[in-house]
Amino acid sequence: MSTTVISTESSVIEEQLAAARDAVASRPKLARVALTACGGSYAVMLPAEYFFGTSATGLEAAAFNAAEFTSRASTRVDDETLVILCSHSGETPETVEAARHARARGALTIAFTHETESPLAQAAEYVIGYQHGPQKSESYVAPALLLRLIARILDDREQTSYVAAIDSAVASLPSLVPAARAAHAEAADAWAFAYRREPLIYTMAAGSNYGTAYSFAICLLQEMQWVHSAAIHAGEYFHGPFEITDVDVPFIALLGLDETRPVEQRAVDFLTEHTDRSLIIDAADFGLDGVDETVRGIVAHLIFNPVLRTYADALADHRGHPLSVRRYMWRMEY
Amino acid sequence: MSTTVISTESSVIEEQLAAARDAVASRPKLARVALTACGGSYAVMLPAEYFFGTSATGLEAAAFNAAEFTSRASTRVDDETLVILCSHSGETPETVEAARHARARGALTIAFTHETESPLAQAAEYVIGYQHGPQKSESYVAPALLLRLIARILDDREQTSYVAAIDSAVASLPSLVPAARAAHAEAADAWAFAYRREPLIYTMAAGSNYGTAYSFAICLLQEMQWVHSAAIHAGEYFHGPFEITDVDVPFIALLGLDETRPVEQRAVDFLTEHTDRSLIIDAADFGLDGVDETVRGIVAHLIFNPVLRTYADALADHRGHPLSVRRYMWRMEY
Repeated sequence: MSTTVISTESSVIEEQLAAARDAVASRPKLARVALTACGGSYAVMLPAEYFFGTSATGLEAAAFNAAEFTSRASTRVDDETLVILCSHSGETPETVEAARHARARGALTIAFTHETESPLAQAAEYVIGYQHGPQKSESYVAPALLLRLIARILDDREQTSYVAAIDSAVASLPSLVPAARAAHAEAADAWAFAYRREPLIYTMAAGSNYGTAYSFAICLLQEMQWVHSAAIHAGEYFHGPFEITDVDVPFIALLGLDETRPVEQRAVDFLTEHTDRSLIIDAADFGLDGVDETVRGIVAHLIFNPVLRTYADALADHRGHPLSVRRYMWRMEY
Repeated sequence: MSTTVISTESSVIEEQLAAARDAVASRPKLARVALTACGGSYAVMLPAEYFFGTSATGLEAAAFNAAEFTSRASTRVDDETLVILCSHSGETPETVEAARHARARGALTIAFTHETESPLAQAAEYVIGYQHGPQKSESYVAPALLLRLIARILDDREQTSYVAAIDSAVASLPSLVPAARAAHAEAADAWAFAYRREPLIYTMAAGSNYGTAYSFAICLLQEMQWVHSAAIHAGEYFHGPFEITDVDVPFIALLGLDETRPVEQRAVDFLTEHTDRSLIIDAADFGLDGVDETVRGIVAHLIFNPVLRTYADALADHRGHPLSVRRYMWRMEY
């Protein structure tokens, strides 16, 4: 995070997206997609893995932590492989190494980063520079652009028709996101005040929203608030984790709009019965009625992310612990 | 868990394994493998996913929580798909439903269960009845048999040569496991006494041992000890979770023998420097020198599981909270 570059302009991003799409389309044979990154950027890959997993019949897709990806040295990374990477600073050593590793094996590499002159941007063949910071457009953040790229890949290769619906949904984010954040502002403040002394808060979700729950647990709570956490998969909840449910154990549970909503709903029903300390955030309240029904589920995480940020901002405020504070990260060698 | 059946005899298990192998081999076209189960049985699938992921060039493999698997209703589950399932009681509703769902779509289904007359055994085409309880052979527990089946599938379909090495390693478990447990008995007792009042203990691993860390976190700690926990991927540790590391935060970190050991080692080095409360268990001490080097990494979890059980037994003893106690599971409808 040593450098701060102005975000890439939207017209340039559109060109980068088109170039990446063309590169994928012109690949004579493509068998699989590896989605690899670390931490919060890895979390961005999880809904992408879900989108492929529920929509592709030919392409295989899997998400990997970048250190694990490179260590495995899988023979499945070859010239029939598309490797999509993401690092905000573009300096995450494991992700840069993953890009080099993939490229050396002949894979097609596309990197998402905020810093388009970074080592990751140089290591990958194609770069998509996303926006970040107060001036950003919600349509040009990393997870939204990743979804748009995947919609193109799916439509080109899998005879689906997602592009128009996804592009339209992403175009509506600049109005949907502030409205959803505003609708949650009061609840977020009350929740943060009530939970400001909690040493542990669990998160829970399934399907395309599991990545959001994971990101909130490891980045917002563990990293930025030093609050213990774990992202519990709602389908796994009843096979172990639910036994730690108690009246005094706080949970944040997400109810999404994709195929796994019933899995999440079952966990929410149990939580609601056995603890008063659960916060349920339901994507049905995100005003997605104008979004094409076929993609409502897969775009919900694009609203969950900023809405949960509202809760994190409020928690940081009431705890007197800014989200920017670190004790190890960027402060020492590791 | 309402029924208790004597474990299947080893000669019968060998016949079941051979029948399952033959069924897979005679499948004219096989494109992918879905590994699906819940909780502790889902954890068993994770090293299997790693084994495929690092050894197969043709077959795609992915592990899914069974509820998520069925909810997705993926078009990728078809007659070119092998679905491997596992449920100890054979009564886990989500896993039984997953077997029915997969079979209805033409997939080849193989179930691992202790109860060979159970609903899961009836729902799947092929059944492998594994051993459990005090009379079991360590060579006939679920994860060992799953590894043997996969070695056969890989050798038959992927031009690998794992069967002899894996079979030999699995045959040595009845001597290796008790020796490893005995070697850790004193350390486990001391650790359990020292940590008996801890409300939270994290686990950490990567690669083929992540499943063991996950299982210990969600089944042994959360479910059976009501101790908060999360399994942290060692590669993800530096991208969020490491910020909650402190002198008073206990961790159990695994050092395995597969390709990802350097990823685990880096996390262990950081832990060792920043907290005195980490327990490091190293598979290099498991006496695996007699095991073929090419499979030492993938068989390590077969020792980690019972060694960690030694720590769980000791923790249960010092906490006065037997591993069999539940407050929700098997006690109510959910």
